[in-house]
Amino acid sequence: MRAGVLFSGGKDSTLAALLLDGFYDVTLVHAGFGVGEAADHARETADAIGFAFDDATLDDAVAEEAVERMAEDGFPRNGIQTVHEAALEAVAGAGYDAVADGTRRDDRVPTVSRARAQALEERHGVDYLSPLAGFGRGAVDRLVDEQLEVEEGPAVELAKGDYEAELRELVREHGGDELAAEVFPDHVQTRVTGRR
Amino acid sequence: MRAGVLFSGGKDSTLAALLLDGFYDVTLVHAGFGVGEAADHARETADAIGFAFDDATLDDAVAEEAVERMAEDGFPRNGIQTVHEAALEAVAGAGYDAVADGTRRDDRVPTVSRARAQALEERHGVDYLSPLAGFGRGAVDRLVDEQLEVEEGPAVELAKGDYEAELRELVREHGGDELAAEVFPDHVQTRVTGRR
Repeated sequence: MRAGVLFSGGKDSTLAALLLDGFYDVTLVHAGFGVGEAADHARETADAIGFAFDDATLDDAVAEEAVERMAEDGFPRNGIQTVHEAALEAVAGAGYDAVADGTRRDDRVPTVSRARAQALEERHGVDYLSPLAGFGRGAVDRLVDEQLEVEEGPAVELAKGDYEAELRELVREHGGDELAAEVFPDHVQTRVTGRR
Repeated sequence: MRAGVLFSGGKDSTLAALLLDGFYDVTLVHAGFGVGEAADHARETADAIGFAFDDATLDDAVAEEAVERMAEDGFPRNGIQTVHEAALEAVAGAGYDAVADGTRRDDRVPTVSRARAQALEERHGVDYLSPLAGFGRGAVDRLVDEQLEVEEGPAVELAKGDYEAELRELVREHGGDELAAEVFPDHVQTRVTGRR
C-alpha cells in the first residue's frame, strides 16, 4: 500500500514516516506554494533520511485565504489550519492508498477531528493516518532523541520546508516586516538532518 | 525504552505491538482476573508472534464493580471501560517506560481521552501510547490483512485472552446463563494465530 506523508522536514512528520515505514510504501510529500526554497529543503531532508519524495503545489487562493486570515487574527493558528486542510485534500487526491501527517495527540494546530478524517476518507477513497495521534509530547520527544539527528536555530534563519517559512514570506509581502513579526514572533525551530 | 502493551491476543493489540516494535523493547501484558485460561491463550499468541509476555492480575474489586455494572446495564460497554482503566493503571505502575493499548480512532469502547492519558502519565511517570489512535477502521483492517494470520469463530467458542472471555464467565457466575447471553450476545470474534 502506498502512503503519501505530508512532510516539512521537521521532527513530527519525520517520525510519522518512520512509524509507517515497513507497513506502507512511504513517499514524503511537501505541500506548499512554491515560495522560496521550502520544497528544496524538504527534499534534502527526505534524501538524508532515505525516503522517496514528491511535492504538491497548492492553489494560490488557499495562500490568499490563509494570509488574510492571519493578518486579521494577528496569529497564525487558523491560517495554518486552512493550509493543512488544503494539503491533506491535495495529497488525498493524488492516487495514494493512504494520506498521513505528523499531527500529535497534544497538538493544538493543525488538528484533524475524527469527523473530518472520516469525511476525507469517504470523499477520496483513501485512509487518513495520523501515526502520532496516540503519542504525547513527552513520548515524541523521547523517540526523536533516540531516532533522529536534529539541528536547532531561530525559525527565521533555519532553512526548513514547513508552512511557516512560506507563510511568513507571504504575510511579509502582504503587510510588511512588522505584520510578519507580529504573526510569527521569532522562536526556536528544529530541522531533521538525519537518522541516528 | 521498555513498553508494556496491553494484550488480548486480538488483532488490535497485536497490530499496536507491531507498530511499536523497533522503537520500544515491547512486552505484551495480559491483564485479567485469573478466570479460565484467558492468560494462557494470550501467552500462546504472544509466543506465536515472537514477543515477550507478562501477565497482570487485577483486583477482585475491579471485577465485582464491572460485573455489577454490566448486570445493571444489560450491555458490556461501561464494565469493559472500568476493566481497561484498571488494566492501564496496573501496567503503568509495573516499571515500564511506556504503557500502550490497541484502542483505535473509531472505537467506542474502551476509550482513553487526552485528559485521562495525561493524568495517567503524570501519576506514574510513564508515557501512554495508543499507536492505533490515528488509524481508522478501514486502515486497521487492511493492515491486519497484510500483516497477520487470524482465525475467526463465535466469541463463546474462540479461545482468546480478551476481557470479554473472563467477564462473560464472571457475569454467568453472578447471574446465570441468561444474563451472560444478554450482556454478551454471541458474535463473531477473531484471534491472531501468527504473522504473515
